[in-house]
Amino acid sequence: MEIIRSTQNKQVKLWRKLATKKGRTLQNSYLLDGWHLVKEALLAQQEIKQVLLVPESKYAERFAALNQDQLEPILISEEVAKSLSETQSPQGIFAILPISQTKVSFAEEKEGAWLLLDAVQDPGNIGTMVRTADAAGFRGVIFGEKTADLYQPKVVRAMQGSQFHIKLLEGNLADYIAEMRQQAIPVFGTELNEAARNYRQVGQFKSFGLIMGNEGNGMAQTLLKKTTANLYIPLQGQAESLNVAVAAGVLMFQLKQPDV
Amino acid sequence: MEIIRSTQNKQVKLWRKLATKKGRTLQNSYLLDGWHLVKEALLAQQEIKQVLLVPESKYAERFAALNQDQLEPILISEEVAKSLSETQSPQGIFAILPISQTKVSFAEEKEGAWLLLDAVQDPGNIGTMVRTADAAGFRGVIFGEKTADLYQPKVVRAMQGSQFHIKLLEGNLADYIAEMRQQAIPVFGTELNEAARNYRQVGQFKSFGLIMGNEGNGMAQTLLKKTTANLYIPLQGQAESLNVAVAAGVLMFQLKQPDV
Repeated sequence: MEIIRSTQNKQVKLWRKLATKKGRTLQNSYLLDGWHLVKEALLAQQEIKQVLLVPESKYAERFAALNQDQLEPILISEEVAKSLSETQSPQGIFAILPISQTKVSFAEEKEGAWLLLDAVQDPGNIGTMVRTADAAGFRGVIFGEKTADLYQPKVVRAMQGSQFHIKLLEGNLADYIAEMRQQAIPVFGTELNEAARNYRQVGQFKSFGLIMGNEGNGMAQTLLKKTTANLYIPLQGQAESLNVAVAAGVLMFQLKQPDV
Repeated sequence: MEIIRSTQNKQVKLWRKLATKKGRTLQNSYLLDGWHLVKEALLAQQEIKQVLLVPESKYAERFAALNQDQLEPILISEEVAKSLSETQSPQGIFAILPISQTKVSFAEEKEGAWLLLDAVQDPGNIGTMVRTADAAGFRGVIFGEKTADLYQPKVVRAMQGSQFHIKLLEGNLADYIAEMRQQAIPVFGTELNEAARNYRQVGQFKSFGLIMGNEGNGMAQTLLKKTTANLYIPLQGQAESLNVAVAAGVLMFQLKQPDV
């Protein structure tokens, strides 16, 4: 079978463009890099457009064993793999997945916890928060308009496949908050102000929204006004603040009522 | 005043070596990069060996305002600053601090919570955990022998100055655990096994140790045997695990009895 060896190959150039927001939008696709993510996609029975494989990759056999839909991988050279990957030593297996726009109507979907990201910038933080939301039993994560793009390579790497387990929405946070509150779902902000309540003293909830804000500037005042209450984590030491992904983890595990 | 402009200057070469473990050990020093960290060092009245400053830096004035000890900064060019920094656009202010080996005897120091890091590898995770330990009111963090080096640039950046607020020790974790247990201080492991207890059901403590293990392999079995109990965080979704810094944050804020 033919192996694509040139990094200047037309198809390879298109794949490389998936690293940019524009490329992802034009092709309505994003790239999974590495066996762990490809495996998660296969196990979650996700629609896969293409699998790219370096024939010498030690993951070729493991892929074959899980390849129930008999996807025909496109063979590529190690050099091409390196040109596609952001890691130093790529594992030689990639998958291209469609970007599907998930819609949720809170009038119909009343149960579940949601994390709302307002202008969060660091892709590692964003991916880690999606992974944590999954682990905490959240229903999904809503990406506000100013939050870094959901399918960029560093976010995808940090999500570790959690995008296959929970819902990821993009859109206007003010609209989503209004919808949730209309359904009597509480929405909590996270800004330290005089009215803020200790996060350990509000109880646990099955259904709620939790907003995390920008790393430097916190969450938008316009959104804060729309919340049910505003929570803070009392800090004991001299640190000025917590990393946003750590704060989100502490809050999610405290507020979410465990499913029995 | 003279400005060092050559990146090949002998002194500049020595400063650049502070990015390596060997260089830090030989010079018994480490580098702070950027105004936030230099400011934290000044406010915490840390011993500062040298301040390096680009005269055009917008932080020059702020430094002068906080420079109570009248440190004489060494002036450097922007090019030299770039050669010292791991960031794309350095702020043009650095400080060189001595590495002081802190010692703690648990026979004398019986109160306080401690985070123990066993073979944790990612510098961002390590720095974030130190920052979180500070915020959660911990007394300090103990770096096991296989944990990535405490003063490497990425750890220093993620600590955000928390090294000035809490104690950082390096050494043999087995010895420290034995010392703590001898003083009746409970030490908790974090490995999912049959005997593991739900982290929300053990209570809150003033004085304890909490061990976090390697990102991929968890903590060492030899240490696990020495713990008082082993804790786990029940995961609700389909995520296989939590990021180690997030897990540490959730555990630290749950287990630490807030100071009143």
